[in-house]
Amino acid sequence: MPDIELLTAATPNGQKISIFLEELGITYKTTSIDLGANEQKKPEFFAVNPNGRIPAIIDHTRGDFHVFESGAIFLYLAEHYDKDFAFRFQDADEKSEMLQWLFFQNAGVGPMQGQANHFFRYAPETIQYGIDRYQNETKRLYSVLEERLKDREYLAGKGKGKYSVADMSTFTWVRWGPWAGIELEKFPRLYDWMKKIEARPAVQKGLLVPNDDPFKEWVMKGQDELKEKHGS
Amino acid sequence: MPDIELLTAATPNGQKISIFLEELGITYKTTSIDLGANEQKKPEFFAVNPNGRIPAIIDHTRGDFHVFESGAIFLYLAEHYDKDFAFRFQDADEKSEMLQWLFFQNAGVGPMQGQANHFFRYAPETIQYGIDRYQNETKRLYSVLEERLKDREYLAGKGKGKYSVADMSTFTWVRWGPWAGIELEKFPRLYDWMKKIEARPAVQKGLLVPNDDPFKEWVMKGQDELKEKHGS
Repeated sequence: MPDIELLTAATPNGQKISIFLEELGITYKTTSIDLGANEQKKPEFFAVNPNGRIPAIIDHTRGDFHVFESGAIFLYLAEHYDKDFAFRFQDADEKSEMLQWLFFQNAGVGPMQGQANHFFRYAPETIQYGIDRYQNETKRLYSVLEERLKDREYLAGKGKGKYSVADMSTFTWVRWGPWAGIELEKFPRLYDWMKKIEARPAVQKGLLVPNDDPFKEWVMKGQDELKEKHGS
Repeated sequence: MPDIELLTAATPNGQKISIFLEELGITYKTTSIDLGANEQKKPEFFAVNPNGRIPAIIDHTRGDFHVFESGAIFLYLAEHYDKDFAFRFQDADEKSEMLQWLFFQNAGVGPMQGQANHFFRYAPETIQYGIDRYQNETKRLYSVLEERLKDREYLAGKGKGKYSVADMSTFTWVRWGPWAGIELEKFPRLYDWMKKIEARPAVQKGLLVPNDDPFKEWVMKGQDELKEKHGS
């Protein structure tokens, strides 16, 4: 029985790994990292991830081997715990497609949407140039995904594709799009793809790790605010 | 004989792939993409990379299979053309280490240093907040690399490590650090590692693809300017 420890917080990068662990159906223990208290910058966390960011895993079944960078965690878990290729590909070309979209998320969607979040939500001063730059780039990246899904169900794989780690990795970011000020309604195929993935039982469970689903709470609160505003 | 086409320009992401092709010693054809003329946004380029960015490859030996995202290109070329594991790892743990540092570059160093370049060099208005934010984040990421190289020669692999695609991928960005306003002298181990990689004959050749090495030209021009300034 695998014995994996997931060090995580309720962010898109954290949630994507708990989703994959739930999809794999393997035992894991969750260690909640309090980002507000900067726990990811403490020596015990640096020992697991020298970059001081969540998520990270420790595989107690394999000599406490630790892995950081969500993209590398996906590939590690896939190699060791998805022996049936349920969420990855055996065929070399399909595997490469999966890796291309996995990197597209990790090197593009994640960093750029993260900057949109920063300028739109967190920056101490309002810098319109920064808000526009990163919201526009996120929208451009979403339009690449929208185009990709034109005649496909999932990002990678022959025919209409197969649900894989490339989808899981991208799903949590797209779901959090509205937090960065992105209207998902402008990307109808991407929205449908997101809702289809969100409905998976393993995804529902993974979204509640480590403690709750702050995005859902925010959306519900936002909807209440909306009702008050429009009196309906 | 492999017959690879590399669509590229003289940027850190472009140069890293020509370096790997030179290291592998395989035949390849270069198609220079003029970023100034926005050639990467033309339909014929989108057919190869739906994200409209360099580098991309077309493998004419394998049914014109095309690959985008430099991280995925590295892994594709490694799988098909580095059968002896000269620049990657057979051992699962060492392979994971290599992937962790490959993602660290693609998801961290590249995007953040790219934003530092933007605010420091290209933005139409001077936004000090943006310059500081991304230069500081790039320095933080470099300090993670500096720490990693404390008792190692290369980023991944047992013992002192082995020169791998993780190093090639990171090398071109670190070499371009000064362009983003980062003083490499503050990271002495990283600087030595960079100079050691830069001295490799294959790296020297890869840096001249597609046409020249604009970074070297800029450094030499900068040194001349420095001499004039200080009268020495």
